[in-house]
Formats: sequence, C-alpha cells, structure tokens
Amino acid sequence: MTDFPPAEYEARVTRAQGAMAAAGMDALLMMTEVEVRYFSGFRTAFWQSSTRPWFLIVPRIGAPVAVVPEIGEALMRSTWVRDVRVWSSPHPSDDGVSLLRDALAGFGVVGMPMGRASALRMSMLDFRRLGVEPVDASALVWNLRFVKSAAEIEAMAAICAVGSRAFARAGSLFSGGMALDAAFRAFRIALLEEGAEEVPYVVGGAGADGYGDVISPPGATALRRGDVLMLDTGASLRGYFCDFDRNFAIGHASDTAKRAYRTLWEATEAGLSAARPGRTCSEVHAAMTAALGDADGGIGRLGHGLGTELTEEPSLAAFEDRVLVPGMVLTLEPSIGVGPGTMMVTEENIVVTEDGPRLLTERAAPELPVIG
Amino acid sequence: MTDFPPAEYEARVTRAQGAMAAAGMDALLMMTEVEVRYFSGFRTAFWQSSTRPWFLIVPRIGAPVAVVPEIGEALMRSTWVRDVRVWSSPHPSDDGVSLLRDALAGFGVVGMPMGRASALRMSMLDFRRLGVEPVDASALVWNLRFVKSAAEIEAMAAICAVGSRAFARAGSLFSGGMALDAAFRAFRIALLEEGAEEVPYVVGGAGADGYGDVISPPGATALRRGDVLMLDTGASLRGYFCDFDRNFAIGHASDTAKRAYRTLWEATEAGLSAARPGRTCSEVHAAMTAALGDADGGIGRLGHGLGTELTEEPSLAAFEDRVLVPGMVLTLEPSIGVGPGTMMVTEENIVVTEDGPRLLTERAAPELPVIG
Repeated sequence: MTDFPPAEYEARVTRAQGAMAAAGMDALLMMTEVEVRYFSGFRTAFWQSSTRPWFLIVPRIGAPVAVVPEIGEALMRSTWVRDVRVWSSPHPSDDGVSLLRDALAGFGVVGMPMGRASALRMSMLDFRRLGVEPVDASALVWNLRFVKSAAEIEAMAAICAVGSRAFARAGSLFSGGMALDAAFRAFRIALLEEGAEEVPYVVGGAGADGYGDVISPPGATALRRGDVLMLDTGASLRGYFCDFDRNFAIGHASDTAKRAYRTLWEATEAGLSAARPGRTCSEVHAAMTAALGDADGGIGRLGHGLGTELTEEPSLAAFEDRVLVPGMVLTLEPSIGVGPGTMMVTEENIVVTEDGPRLLTERAAPELPVIG
Repeated sequence: MTDFPPAEYEARVTRAQGAMAAAGMDALLMMTEVEVRYFSGFRTAFWQSSTRPWFLIVPRIGAPVAVVPEIGEALMRSTWVRDVRVWSSPHPSDDGVSLLRDALAGFGVVGMPMGRASALRMSMLDFRRLGVEPVDASALVWNLRFVKSAAEIEAMAAICAVGSRAFARAGSLFSGGMALDAAFRAFRIALLEEGAEEVPYVVGGAGADGYGDVISPPGATALRRGDVLMLDTGASLRGYFCDFDRNFAIGHASDTAKRAYRTLWEATEAGLSAARPGRTCSEVHAAMTAALGDADGGIGRLGHGLGTELTEEPSLAAFEDRVLVPGMVLTLEPSIGVGPGTMMVTEENIVVTEDGPRLLTERAAPELPVIG
C-alpha cells in the first residue's frame, strides 16, 4: 500500500529517466527517506532508526531496484517496486554493501544528490567500499520535485486544511497563564484531532511584542497579557507537509505588535501579487523585501519550497533566480525585527497556478488577533 | 536553556577529550542532530529542515566551537557553548564551508563518525571543499554514548513512564470496529496527554494472531474480533526516547496467539536474567534465542541500545560481543513467526545496573491481554 497509485510513482520515474538521458546518467542512487519514498512510495516512520541503510536505484532504462534490510521487505513489496533485494541487517561486516555494489554493477555514470540539502545516509566507510564515484544529481532531482502533481497538491491542500482548522481553535486552546509547553502540547493534540497523521514539527515562541527566535523548544514560562504567541507547524498527511504559522496576542495587542504584524501581512500580500508563473524567486523576494522596508527578521530567506519535506528548494532569496512555474508549492514567510532580540514571523502556503498563486492555507487575519 | 545543566555536557566533552587523547585525534567534527545535541545541548525540531547544515567542533584541548546558520544563533548561545560562529544561510556559494574550514584549521587529526548508523549531514560537494580527510570516530563516540549518566537515565525513566501510562489506557482507547489509523491517532494523543513532548515514532500492526510487519504506517482497516493489535512507540522527553510496544487481543485471543505471546514473554524473562554487567550482548541474544526456539521474527536482532536516539548501538545480536556495563540502556525485543507472513513482537526497556537490569517500562502482562 502506498499513498498514491502506482501511476504516480511511475510518472516520476519516467520523468527522471528523461532527465537522466539528457544529463548522461545511467542510474540514480537514492538513500534518504524522501528520495526513496519519492520514487517508490515506501513510507515508514522507521527512518527514525539510524541503524540500517536503505537504497533505491533508479536506472535510466528499466524499473527501480530496492536494496533494503529484510525488516522492510514486506512493506517495500507492497509498493510498485518489483525488484526487491534484501539482507539481514544489522550485519557485522557487510551491511548491504556487496548487495548494493552488485546492483550498481554495469551502470556507467551513477548520479546521487550531493548538493544543498542532501545527505549521505549511510556509513561513509561503507560508501567508499562501494567503489562508486557518483556525479551530482541534485539539480536533476530538484527539477522533478519542484513541480507537484495534482495528487501531491491535493495531499498538501488537505494537510493545510487540517492546520487551518487547528489554528481556528486557538481561542479555546490558548490563554493567559498557560505555560508555553502546554500550549505546544495542546496544539499538537488539536492537529491530530483535526486529522494530521504526524506532527513532526512544532516550533514557536511567545513574548512581549514578539519572540527571540523561531526554532527553540518551549519552556514552562506562562503566557502573559500582552505576549505575542506564535506557533508554526509542520504536520503531515500521506507524507506531505504543511508549514505555516499564526500569531496571537494574549489579552492585549500593543501598537508596536499590531504595526509589525500588519507590515508582515502586507509583505505577504506583496508576495502573493508577485508569485506568478514566469517571475523568479528573487523577484518574489524583492517584492516582499520592499514591503518590509529595512526590517529583517534574520532568518535568511522569505519562504521556500514545500512538499514531501518541511523545507524544500528553492529559497525565496535574493540569490535565487529560478523561474516560478505552475505546480510549485511555496511558503511565503516574511519576518521582521520588532526590537532588540525580538522578532515576528508569519507564513502562508501557496501553489503557483497559471492564474497566479492559490492559497492552500486559510489566509491569516489582516490584523493581529487577540485571544485569551 | 538546555535539557540538562551545563555540567552534564561539560562532562561528556571531558570524557570525549580523554578518549581523543588516547585515540590520537585532535578534534571531532559533529554534524548530525544527535551528535551536535549530545555535546552542546542544542535541541530544536528545526533539524526537520534539510536546507541548512550545522556543525560542532569538539577539540581535544579547549572548548567546543559551534558553526551554525544565524537562524540558530540565539538558541546556540543559550547553551553552554561560548564560541558560536554564524553565517546567513542558505547561501548561494559558501554555505558555511569557509567558516568551518577556518574553524578546523590547525587541527591535525580530525575524527568524524563514519561507521554504522552515521551519516554525512551536509552536501558532499561542500564536504570535499573542506579539504579535510577525517578518521573514523564512530567507536569513540559510541563508547561515550553507550553509558548513560544519572540525568539521562532519569529522563528515560520519565518518558518510559509516560508510555506505560498511555498503554495502561488501552482498554478505553482501542476497541473492535475502530480503524487502525484511528487507533494510532488515539495513541499519539494519549502519549501527549500523559506528558510526552514529541511522538516522532508510532508503528504497529493488527491481524488475526499477529501482523505482517512492524514498520508499516496504518491503513483504515477496522480492528476485528480475534485480531492482535500491536503498537510500538518512540515518544520523547527532553530529547530522550522510550521505545517499547504492547500487544492486545481484540475481544478474543486464540490459543495460537496466546502461545506466541507467552513465548515472547518468556524470552524477555530470559533476556532479563542474562542482562547483567560482564555479560556480552551476544550472550543476552543467545539466552533469548534459546527461549524462542526455532521461531525467528526476522527483524535481525533481539534488542538494541536506546537513548537520545530511538535505536542506538549496540545490537543484541549474535555478532555483538560488547560487554554490558552499568548505565547501558537497552531494549529487549524478541520477535516470533506465528504463521506464514504473520509475526508478533514485544519490547521492554531496561537499564543495566550493578545488581542486574532495572525495568524502565512497566513490565507487560505475562498473558496476552484481551480488550475491547
């Protein structure tokens, strides 16, 4: 059983094979959770365990080959992949290496993602034992992943709707006096109740007029009147993510907080106007930057790709000249410095269509909502 | 703010430095979530984002150096690490590489985990640009991580207690007619309600007398009378995991299911008798294997280390001759084939003490519980 019908994965492999022919690659070697899942449909929480390596080979001609620990055999055989080769892992001396080497034999040029956001998810000593000198396939794989299919967009619309429903309950979930870690926990539960399958990512912050950073785990400090509470989720459904946040003032919103929030809202509007096919990421970035003025929240970009990972290429950044095409799913994530060590950030999720961007998230209110 | 006081992390670094001196290494280069957190206390869900690399250098002499994207600066500065060097990431051409190269300059022999369960969590192209030829530090780092401190054991006892409380509610959470994915969701919520901070890992299965594998995500099939439902969690608190499961018969337990369950329970008892300081992992494995007889569930080992990762070294496997010492936290995880394509598995978590193993989980019932 996979999240989508076999035709979805076959289409991805067919596109990959066309790109491999153009790039002069004979096979792709995939080994991260996302890469293996993207082409096979193999989805399991078991990637949490770092003990065992997993491999998928996508040849330029023919069908994919999975080389996996036997604990994953039944699940891999439930996907559309027919050629499944297994070994008993962990193995003291040959943890899939000779099996993988055999499977790669005969392929001339082997591609593997080696650029930004890639990882070697196997022992480097074992990798060297393979005797393969791969070429970088990052651009090739990202060119496929950038553009989402109708099925992918539907999955992402569904998880964004889950997130929107959970945020809509903020008024009853959060209130002054509640500890921040309790607010995080209540929000995780709300996401699950609304239909999320997993909630791998919840971050946020709270403080007077803003928060210090956006990646810290929550402490036990109670929410106070005048605090701005921000929660940002990464919930998932069928292996696809939403990634958006909402801000709420607890009891009272200061003029400073209201002004910063409104500026962020306008910056997102500017991003929505700019995010059309044919425009570049840097142009969307520039539109949002202009709306923000001098304030920079310091998170390094103003949005990013979204899909089967919480953050994907491309970045909405000044250096990114990639052109937007229909089917790209992006976050618009302007951030702003509010005071010394204090910032605010907002985030929405969109899909680029022929007619311009379509919001997958229920658009945040234009004025900072006051709750609790 | 870190999960433990600075002294906990300082002690880890001091132990590492002693081991580095003995191994002839001048610095350790750490870049995975667990390795960076182990020595610094830096904990964030932001590792979910693959876009940015993070680095920590542990020198043989002196204090650790963090080289991280500026989005993580505030959080890293809240740890005990004083030397924090940042850059604006993502960067189009130099994503921390020159900063890291400078920080590594002057160290002769640089160690990096390159063996089993390790990963290169950065662009391999960027890694090559570093110009560093590291030596394998897997054994060194595992030798530290194997033995848990009192603080670590306390955190793990707490999350195991959370899991035990959630499983104790099984009778009211699960019942015949409930879809398996709804059971998973109810269990995740129960874990959060009982105090889990995150629930990164829930797997399981259900079927007549057992299940087909132990790593699949749940489908929507309803639980039927006579099914054995197994749920296995990886919940976490302060960055430390429990990893155990429970089996429940829905409405009725067949003799086959009862017999298999009892055999697994006895195998765990055998493991508990064997898991004493001075014994090897292979001896514990042998004791459990003897109790299981010919049946093998095919998951490749009968338990493993547990800590700040869901699965850690060592394996309870025939090939593993590591000697148990006080402070090691292990899972005992016997599995058994029940019929064609059907298996059962049980799991408990223990800490090895001078006096033998101490259960961190509330021991499963000796007979298969019937609920719903």
